Amino acid sequence: MIPTKTELIECSTRIAPFIHNTPVLTSQTINTISGAEVFFKCENFQKMGAFKMRGAANAILQLSDEEKVKGVITHSSGNFAQAVSLAALKLGVKAYIVMPKNAPLPKKEAVQGYGGVITECESTLKARESTVENIIKKTGATPLHPSNQMEVIIGQGTAAIELLQNHPNLDVIITPVGGGGLLAGTALAAHHFKPHCKVIGAEPMGADDAFRSLAAGEILDNENTNTIADGLRTKLGDQNFPIIQELVEKIVLVDEQEIIDAMRLVWERMKIIIEPSSAVALAPILRGEFKSKKVGIIISGGNVDLNNLPF
Amino acid sequence: MIPTKTELIECSTRIAPFIHNTPVLTSQTINTISGAEVFFKCENFQKMGAFKMRGAANAILQLSDEEKVKGVITHSSGNFAQAVSLAALKLGVKAYIVMPKNAPLPKKEAVQGYGGVITECESTLKARESTVENIIKKTGATPLHPSNQMEVIIGQGTAAIELLQNHPNLDVIITPVGGGGLLAGTALAAHHFKPHCKVIGAEPMGADDAFRSLAAGEILDNENTNTIADGLRTKLGDQNFPIIQELVEKIVLVDEQEIIDAMRLVWERMKIIIEPSSAVALAPILRGEFKSKKVGIIISGGNVDLNNLPF
Repeated sequence: MIPTKTELIECSTRIAPFIHNTPVLTSQTINTISGAEVFFKCENFQKMGAFKMRGAANAILQLSDEEKVKGVITHSSGNFAQAVSLAALKLGVKAYIVMPKNAPLPKKEAVQGYGGVITECESTLKARESTVENIIKKTGATPLHPSNQMEVIIGQGTAAIELLQNHPNLDVIITPVGGGGLLAGTALAAHHFKPHCKVIGAEPMGADDAFRSLAAGEILDNENTNTIADGLRTKLGDQNFPIIQELVEKIVLVDEQEIIDAMRLVWERMKIIIEPSSAVALAPILRGEFKSKKVGIIISGGNVDLNNLPF
Repeated sequence: MIPTKTELIECSTRIAPFIHNTPVLTSQTINTISGAEVFFKCENFQKMGAFKMRGAANAILQLSDEEKVKGVITHSSGNFAQAVSLAALKLGVKAYIVMPKNAPLPKKEAVQGYGGVITECESTLKARESTVENIIKKTGATPLHPSNQMEVIIGQGTAAIELLQNHPNLDVIITPVGGGGLLAGTALAAHHFKPHCKVIGAEPMGADDAFRSLAAGEILDNENTNTIADGLRTKLGDQNFPIIQELVEKIVLVDEQEIIDAMRLVWERMKIIIEPSSAVALAPILRGEFKSKKVGIIISGGNVDLNNLPF
């Protein structure tokens, strides 16, 4: 029961006024190194610095007027908290953000800068969830999930729709996979708009739940989350897993040094700032696995802590 | 005796096949902070990562066939060495680069990567110049100067020509000033194409030779070069100084903390990598000196040492 092409088109139209149609960059150096022709869909240039703006905007735009009055809520310490805050701000909706007490100050400040109302809690998942429940009881706010909600998944897929409009002859699109929203959305986009274009997920070896889940045929937890790609430490969900099972070609794994090397290469040669999660999608291409192919990459975002770089 | 509009147009046409017409970016955040409308001409996305490619290409393209056979030579440890190497490579000309023994390895590797033939020498100016003289005696190579040679100055001005083609209503263009080639070239471009558009140079207080030279009416040395903006530690020359005297509105000074803050702001909010010298041109805008103005900035380059960042 995957979403239809019409739903994707409606989503693109719905969110267009609230997002950037981000540029697609290329690099002669990286083409030479990889033997492939690589097209970087630069969601690091998206509003608030990541593709998550797309899904957040799509979900909030579909609320009823009554729901909009009551606001939205999410628990996140990363890009989705900023995305919900900014999308809500633009739509005149109140955003409640539950964050662990120990979340980095710059992340809290970013959320506050976009008008999000932060409630702090202990850093356990249980504390987060009960804090969310309490706020929902008081306010009636609608919960939003960063990756396991169909409106969000479809929204994330619009980056690939734009990429395929600009470059219809791609052989494959690679995205990083963490919670699975971007990968599932991208797979939907390719399926409906360019079915010949394969979709592949790239995942750190240190958080390889998606790789193992596809092999097992069921959603598995991460056994550990030892990766610099902090956006990819989450696991798949029941909304996106069936789409990934049906439409994604495979998951490829990369090690930590490959992630850091790919990130550094892009910073040094392309002069753009990408976060480690984005470098995960480039790393397999640099291994030479896609020689002579036209490969799109969703550069998921550019939100990094400049005080804590791996080089 | 300033170069004519025709000379600038011919230069643009001449070098077009060998350079990128780089994008012009904007940032809502920076507009809000500054109260100005700021247009970033992104020469950090230029080939080899800096505007210097323009002047090098223009100079080499105007050599006679005989001169091309004998090659070109420059002494530089920075962007110009890379620019000459790459432009020469593309034009089938041999490039001799004299570099001090203690130049950072990545800079040597970059030059070698573009095919430049490096001769090492002691790090004094005298040693550099005598090494250049020796190679010229042996090879007959033509010397190229990074900023004080009219073909180079005119070449650097083509970035502003492109910027003004995209944004004809700019009130002012700001460039960093080091050797003076970019500033003089930009002033020529505005003078001939949009005379209402003022041109201003921005300079670190720690290397304020251009500011003092304009005030004194003669070329003065730097008293010290205490600045992170390593591209701006050089002084003006007799080819560019008269142009700067005639056509540049003024030089504004910025301190080191302003440079670092401006650089970090661009990295964090625009997700692009700019070198400290480029941040020098943004810093006065962030002070609020250009409220309600449309301001162009030439982002001179993006070649930074990721192992040695100021944050």
